[in-house]
Amino acid sequence: MLLAALREEVLEANLDLVRRGLVLSTFGNASGVDRKEGLIVIKPSGVAYKAMKPGDLVVTDLQGKVMEGTLRPSSDLPTHAALYRAFPSIGGIAHTHSEYATAWAQARRAIPCLGTTHADYFHGPIPVTEVMAEDEIVGEYEANTGAAIVRTFENLDAMSIPAVLVANHAPFAWGRDPRKAAETAWMLESVARMAYLTMSINPQASDIAKTLHDRHFLRKHGEKAYYGQMRPKE
Amino acid sequence: MLLAALREEVLEANLDLVRRGLVLSTFGNASGVDRKEGLIVIKPSGVAYKAMKPGDLVVTDLQGKVMEGTLRPSSDLPTHAALYRAFPSIGGIAHTHSEYATAWAQARRAIPCLGTTHADYFHGPIPVTEVMAEDEIVGEYEANTGAAIVRTFENLDAMSIPAVLVANHAPFAWGRDPRKAAETAWMLESVARMAYLTMSINPQASDIAKTLHDRHFLRKHGEKAYYGQMRPKE
Amino acid sequence: MLLAALREEVLEANLDLVRRGLVLSTFGNASGVDRKEGLIVIKPSGVAYKAMKPGDLVVTDLQGKVMEGTLRPSSDLPTHAALYRAFPSIGGIAHTHSEYATAWAQARRAIPCLGTTHADYFHGPIPVTEVMAEDEIVGEYEANTGAAIVRTFENLDAMSIPAVLVANHAPFAWGRDPRKAAETAWMLESVARMAYLTMSINPQASDIAKTLHDRHFLRKHGEKAYYGQMRPKE
Amino acid sequence: MLLAALREEVLEANLDLVRRGLVLSTFGNASGVDRKEGLIVIKPSGVAYKAMKPGDLVVTDLQGKVMEGTLRPSSDLPTHAALYRAFPSIGGIAHTHSEYATAWAQARRAIPCLGTTHADYFHGPIPVTEVMAEDEIVGEYEANTGAAIVRTFENLDAMSIPAVLVANHAPFAWGRDPRKAAETAWMLESVARMAYLTMSINPQASDIAKTLHDRHFLRKHGEKAYYGQMRPKE
Repeated sequence: MLLAALREEVLEANLDLVRRGLVLSTFGNASGVDRKEGLIVIKPSGVAYKAMKPGDLVVTDLQGKVMEGTLRPSSDLPTHAALYRAFPSIGGIAHTHSEYATAWAQARRAIPCLGTTHADYFHGPIPVTEVMAEDEIVGEYEANTGAAIVRTFENLDAMSIPAVLVANHAPFAWGRDPRKAAETAWMLESVARMAYLTMSINPQASDIAKTLHDRHFLRKHGEKAYYGQMRPKE
Repeated sequence: MLLAALREEVLEANLDLVRRGLVLSTFGNASGVDRKEGLIVIKPSGVAYKAMKPGDLVVTDLQGKVMEGTLRPSSDLPTHAALYRAFPSIGGIAHTHSEYATAWAQARRAIPCLGTTHADYFHGPIPVTEVMAEDEIVGEYEANTGAAIVRTFENLDAMSIPAVLVANHAPFAWGRDPRKAAETAWMLESVARMAYLTMSINPQASDIAKTLHDRHFLRKHGEKAYYGQMRPKE
Repeated sequence: MLLAALREEVLEANLDLVRRGLVLSTFGNASGVDRKEGLIVIKPSGVAYKAMKPGDLVVTDLQGKVMEGTLRPSSDLPTHAALYRAFPSIGGIAHTHSEYATAWAQARRAIPCLGTTHADYFHGPIPVTEVMAEDEIVGEYEANTGAAIVRTFENLDAMSIPAVLVANHAPFAWGRDPRKAAETAWMLESVARMAYLTMSINPQASDIAKTLHDRHFLRKHGEKAYYGQMRPKE
Repeated sequence: MLLAALREEVLEANLDLVRRGLVLSTFGNASGVDRKEGLIVIKPSGVAYKAMKPGDLVVTDLQGKVMEGTLRPSSDLPTHAALYRAFPSIGGIAHTHSEYATAWAQARRAIPCLGTTHADYFHGPIPVTEVMAEDEIVGEYEANTGAAIVRTFENLDAMSIPAVLVANHAPFAWGRDPRKAAETAWMLESVARMAYLTMSINPQASDIAKTLHDRHFLRKHGEKAYYGQMRPKE
């Protein structure tokens, strides 16, 4: 069986999404990539989480061609593959329909950075993609969803802002590996929820100052990080 | 005992409603129909869910006449019976007082289709019935509730939009069998909740494009479905 | 020990409030009355719910004079006693700081009757007391809280609308016995929550028609009730 | 090992924060102070709560210099230390990212006193600090956060209003010991949540009268307290 360790990791990332209440029914999937082999491991489509075993996961190449597995891969595979091709530093992706992040996506509004909780994880507002054109929807819809995300990051760093809202759909989050991607999806939901509450209390609430944002993000990331027990590499 | 298997299924559908937090106290009921026999199986009125046994369920004909059972059927039986007579493809009905769907019903607002989660399950906004007239309320109230729902679907397909909001009351959902009806009641609540959040973030949020709606609905339903592990028939 | 059975019932009613998530920390108390003996049984003040035993409850007369018990009674006792004296049909009272009902009380807004869930339990909007005057607060505050509630019901029937919001404070609910009072406190919270959601969706949402209100209330209460398994006496 | 008993107490206070759902991931920390020894006990930085042992806690002096411990202290230590130096009556501090209190902090709005639940715990609105200046953020950020809190209390009594919202960040709460600080952080979240709901129902809702505020606060605190089973000293 190809990529036994990565399969375990991807399975755990999928279960993390469930344990954290981020998936609704079977809406949600996590994947991981082996950069050396050029292979993706992804959840099968529409399968119940609790019965899933490492061997049920599907292995594909970076174009989304199935290399191993008897089940059909998640229908969102072409979106995952597009992100792996466009963002070479990412090792895992998580897609959920978590409630508050999905509400921001449905509202077609970027999530402003209103506080340090946001700044600790995301170095800027969470962007929202443009609404897709008719021909993009009728054509290779899931691949075009990936392309819409990639366009959104033309002037943004995907590792500093590791999440996006797909307009009228839901969020995607990513990270250096599948479990980090699932953790980011969780933090995104918390940030989305607190931004919702904040804007309800004060509709004029605005993004925090860049200095404060930098301070918090760099407290946890980069060369001079001083949060936690180790000098983090992430 | 008539319809032993359907009784089990209806009991499980009722318990699904409880497990998913969709019923408040004893407000809520699920039923199923045996089309060949022309018989309905429904929850008894005002009985605690956890003590309920298959034999406690009540069997009636399509006019709501009790054929088997010592307990009184749910007081909403005439509504269920009216739907079974009007919508020949449905096999199960679930009625809940789930919070967000009930709030939309109380607000007398249809739930707009703001995203793909909604589009995956419902091929259009969730309609709301007209407010019932004085004489409809004073007369055969529960049967008239059914008639109000049926009128709401005069130009809609009940299998593509398998739920409705009864104005000032609460939702009804249905499907090909009782458990599918309970699942739809659950998805309706999720969709109602996300629509609530979305409209709070952006009061101008509007229905998604028809192309996107079709794409998502038809990804899961109909001839060309490609979601899940089998070509679904549903 | 006086009133052993009523003590058990009052203890269970207090625990019902906790089990249903209606009390915050030690804010909340339930009591019961023995009309023949003219005695009240009430929770002691500021005691942890899970360690409470029937013998910890305090027995007082209808003026609030302690007849049995070594612990101090709930500081809200004078409010309970005032209600028992003014409303001769009630047998139990529950006071909570449940979140949504308390928010309506803090907003000094009556809860409008927006749907049948409300109508099933309360035959009209849930009223809110007037703000208390300086001298009422400085004086016998808890007794005056009772007096403010009684004034609010001058033209209302306490058994048809078995709950009230004390302005800037929190709700009181009651019923024919302590456990029914606790159940009513629970339904009040649900109704308060759904009214909150409804008004957020549609700020113009308005009270349901009297005919519909009567139909639902009388389906469950009074001579012609037809909900549940027995002709209810409640 | 220094301060064995206080370590246990601080550990329990940290776990109280988790049990009450007030911390998000590893965001949150509680500390305690031994006034006689002039030593602080605080949670280590970025360590998982469930694996934490008393020996993992870090002991520092009131300037934040580590006196015992192999792990790095919470990065918020300089804030805690500043508060212990400025407020000589407090014995414990709890910092959380609890959702509603954080939303008020992000909205840069003080929490008004809208009801008696608030008045029972806090003798006035919960203040919010000023936004910190560029040089305060670039410099000794965490110490300057402490200084900003202390400035906010120039004309307020820290023991009567035992909590603050740090603008664009999150709340800090305190009390006579670590567990009381954790309890106050919990009550703050409840008060923040109910204030949120109240302002949504009635945007014109306003602070309660001073007489009522005093009555409730003094019912629980001070010489003439009459709530609970003992004349409380707190």
